[in-house]
Amino acid sequence: MAPIKVTIAGPRGRMGKEAVKMAENTEGFKLISVLDNKNNGKKLSDIEGFVNSEVSVYTDINECFEEETPDVLIDLTTPETGYIHTKTALEYGVRPVVGTTGFSTEQLEELKMMAAEKKIGCIIAPNFAIGAVLMMKFSQMAAKYFDDVEIIELHHDQKLDAPSGTAVKTAEMIASQREPKTQGHPGEKETIRGARGADYEGMHIHSVRLPGLIAHQQVMFGADGQTLTIRHDSYNRSSFMSGVKVCVETVIKLDTLVYGLENILD
Amino acid sequence: MAPIKVTIAGPRGRMGKEAVKMAENTEGFKLISVLDNKNNGKKLSDIEGFVNSEVSVYTDINECFEEETPDVLIDLTTPETGYIHTKTALEYGVRPVVGTTGFSTEQLEELKMMAAEKKIGCIIAPNFAIGAVLMMKFSQMAAKYFDDVEIIELHHDQKLDAPSGTAVKTAEMIASQREPKTQGHPGEKETIRGARGADYEGMHIHSVRLPGLIAHQQVMFGADGQTLTIRHDSYNRSSFMSGVKVCVETVIKLDTLVYGLENILD
Amino acid sequence: MAPIKVTIAGPRGRMGKEAVKMAENTEGFKLISVLDNKNNGKKLSDIEGFVNSEVSVYTDINECFEEETPDVLIDLTTPETGYIHTKTALEYGVRPVVGTTGFSTEQLEELKMMAAEKKIGCIIAPNFAIGAVLMMKFSQMAAKYFDDVEIIELHHDQKLDAPSGTAVKTAEMIASQREPKTQGHPGEKETIRGARGADYEGMHIHSVRLPGLIAHQQVMFGADGQTLTIRHDSYNRSSFMSGVKVCVETVIKLDTLVYGLENILD
Amino acid sequence: MAPIKVTIAGPRGRMGKEAVKMAENTEGFKLISVLDNKNNGKKLSDIEGFVNSEVSVYTDINECFEEETPDVLIDLTTPETGYIHTKTALEYGVRPVVGTTGFSTEQLEELKMMAAEKKIGCIIAPNFAIGAVLMMKFSQMAAKYFDDVEIIELHHDQKLDAPSGTAVKTAEMIASQREPKTQGHPGEKETIRGARGADYEGMHIHSVRLPGLIAHQQVMFGADGQTLTIRHDSYNRSSFMSGVKVCVETVIKLDTLVYGLENILD
Repeated sequence: MAPIKVTIAGPRGRMGKEAVKMAENTEGFKLISVLDNKNNGKKLSDIEGFVNSEVSVYTDINECFEEETPDVLIDLTTPETGYIHTKTALEYGVRPVVGTTGFSTEQLEELKMMAAEKKIGCIIAPNFAIGAVLMMKFSQMAAKYFDDVEIIELHHDQKLDAPSGTAVKTAEMIASQREPKTQGHPGEKETIRGARGADYEGMHIHSVRLPGLIAHQQVMFGADGQTLTIRHDSYNRSSFMSGVKVCVETVIKLDTLVYGLENILD
Repeated sequence: MAPIKVTIAGPRGRMGKEAVKMAENTEGFKLISVLDNKNNGKKLSDIEGFVNSEVSVYTDINECFEEETPDVLIDLTTPETGYIHTKTALEYGVRPVVGTTGFSTEQLEELKMMAAEKKIGCIIAPNFAIGAVLMMKFSQMAAKYFDDVEIIELHHDQKLDAPSGTAVKTAEMIASQREPKTQGHPGEKETIRGARGADYEGMHIHSVRLPGLIAHQQVMFGADGQTLTIRHDSYNRSSFMSGVKVCVETVIKLDTLVYGLENILD
Repeated sequence: MAPIKVTIAGPRGRMGKEAVKMAENTEGFKLISVLDNKNNGKKLSDIEGFVNSEVSVYTDINECFEEETPDVLIDLTTPETGYIHTKTALEYGVRPVVGTTGFSTEQLEELKMMAAEKKIGCIIAPNFAIGAVLMMKFSQMAAKYFDDVEIIELHHDQKLDAPSGTAVKTAEMIASQREPKTQGHPGEKETIRGARGADYEGMHIHSVRLPGLIAHQQVMFGADGQTLTIRHDSYNRSSFMSGVKVCVETVIKLDTLVYGLENILD
Repeated sequence: MAPIKVTIAGPRGRMGKEAVKMAENTEGFKLISVLDNKNNGKKLSDIEGFVNSEVSVYTDINECFEEETPDVLIDLTTPETGYIHTKTALEYGVRPVVGTTGFSTEQLEELKMMAAEKKIGCIIAPNFAIGAVLMMKFSQMAAKYFDDVEIIELHHDQKLDAPSGTAVKTAEMIASQREPKTQGHPGEKETIRGARGADYEGMHIHSVRLPGLIAHQQVMFGADGQTLTIRHDSYNRSSFMSGVKVCVETVIKLDTLVYGLENILD
């Protein structure tokens, strides 16, 4: 079988670097070009930190797609650039795999229609960590059978927001599957404010911050005599690449836009 | 809606007692009779530990089903008695929910055919703990995306067998979903024999035994930069009852025999 | 060696029942009498649930200590009764082991002086669970080397107060060992109020409540590249008895009052 | 107070690089020279990856100690070189902090006598991770009160030996504190060989190996109705530096050789 020809946009970013490595080391993938906002006309090996001299660097996406014919565009740039790249790729018949949480509902709607019209696959994923996506998916499934759930997310102490985006997304997915329920004893009382955590539609979310920690989340379901716990530990960025890989392999077989990794895992 | 009329076989056993409590306290269920190997002709309230005087006690299943017309039989007896009860129930058009690991393949085949012929539901469940069943189901699903997995099961130190039945069943379900793989470093070496645990088709299973513990299992998946952990803690027998309840509610809508709680959860 | 002669006050309470069992089953202990607010003059075997006919029941503590000469009084009554019992025991030269959080500072001071004067041991313990006490002691020790710590306590959802008494006591013990520190990023922000938990002198405490859970606490320390976690799981009341046993064995060798199990463990 | 003047041997190794960073960034420490097996006579800033131009590089330890007068030598080289460095440092009155498991009993004896004679401190540490050392110390303490314990150690799947050195060391420390006990049910049976793990004097050790994991260990104690768990997670090498720092600060106040970080933590 011919390898899947891949173009990567944003190769010098932290995710981009990992993606270049992944594309080069995955059997069945062939990295043919990168889209970079500088270095136009060079070879990838001309950029510090890269060695592959067969990969062309383009600054202009139209030029890139006219000279090469990739099967898939992996876009790891910004929401603004990513939106333009995705539209252009769909026009050229190149299937986009885009990692972003930043597209608006209107933009998603528009891209969905374009993909449907062109009958080609497109995957937009807010989170490429398969383990995290499975944790959310399993939590949503378990919520059908367990009325009570609490979420504990644990991150390094340089994180600014609490709760984490993943925790809120998990809570949303659980909420979509259950009757609203105010958990805990109706008469429960905080002797120190905040002890019971954040309240999201009756569920409680707890945000732990400690130096040393990286990115962890534990979803706990409780019922008479038992608890069920689903936990994801992310130790470094390389964890995202197995998700990108699955997306590239899957987008080839799709003929519509799919939003969220959870919708391509079964 | 009319309540589901329930008969319970084995009401004085440990599971049976919990089932009686559950059937009496669940809205939409009505306990109408029990099958007991003694106390024929009494009321349930005549037996020590029970109070419901509207529930008749029968020793003979035929007599029971001729005088009352339950919708569902919950059988918590032995494999031998349970087998006879299940057949008789199917003949009378009563839907059986049976908790056992003890039926032979031939017996299961026969009961399956009977249920199909009669077009009525029947559920045979080796494990009623919904949390444990979800843990196994999720593990099987995760095995599609993670090549490496180890199972740690933890029980009180009076348990005789290692690994536990649930651990072996989990390993079987995972094995059915993955390419066989010998995990760990090819050159790994035990400096004390047994350190790497039991080897089940390349997966490793570890059995922890400590006083204080009850029944716990943790399934850990690992990949580059991440781990995904699914854990079930069972603290007491009441944990089984939510599973029995789901079975009673589901068997009413089925027209075939289903083996295993995992096949009715979605 | 002669066995340690034990009197138990409050034998019909939940803790009292366990203590009777423990005293009867521990080699080197001999239960000789119980103090009960009824059943005066009976034998223990006359009270439902007990079988030992050699144990006398007294309602009056003076009468009890005049007729029998126990070495140790295990008091599991109320703060009011316990205070009187402790004083009386010290007067009679009987060493008290008292489980209570309810004595005032003045009462403790007075009892301390009495014990010192009489030169006999006395142990007042707010918590008999050795595992919980070790968790607190280790946490206090670890706080010398780790600047950052968060406490997660997990209980059944019928618990009214949050955080638990043990969590607050743990935080106090840690605070006594460290420079005050406001943890987390100075600019951190709760997008849902309460996410970061209760703030106790810069430490954060999170209270999880779920059906199924019993009584659990996890103390997590974090530093560059590592975390240290100390966790106690209490599954049932029998966990207290190993602590009572250690106290009985220790109080015999003491000649002063000690408050808190942590001060007799080394 | 004058800063502690520090020399680091082995600055280009993985531990050495972290130590240079630590010494430069710790208030109260002043890095004055490094011992390197090449680059003699250069400044540290001449070596790739370093920037501090005030630090002299020496290849010969005698020359180093004659020209500079450090208070402490941090040695992160090999056992062979480290042994010579330690002896020489003691002769010059420089206090050594040495990270190694490789000294023989005879070498340790000799160094101990030298330190005692010179009346200066010296610390030899097989493990600088304070969290790991506290885990071992706490486990040893808990073993006095809990008869039953199992150790679960979890590492990446490129590790060759099982159980890990830390697990065996922990088991040794626990064994030194308890009556030998064969744990588990006397009649327990492995249906798959190895399930119950490695047997170390009646304790069981389980070695989990998965990609994604780094270096983790969990020591679980069990007794009636409760478990106590002590866990250390090491995420990267920077975790060792807090231990090195404590050693430098402590060695200044010692007048003998101490082996093992656990013996300077209280």
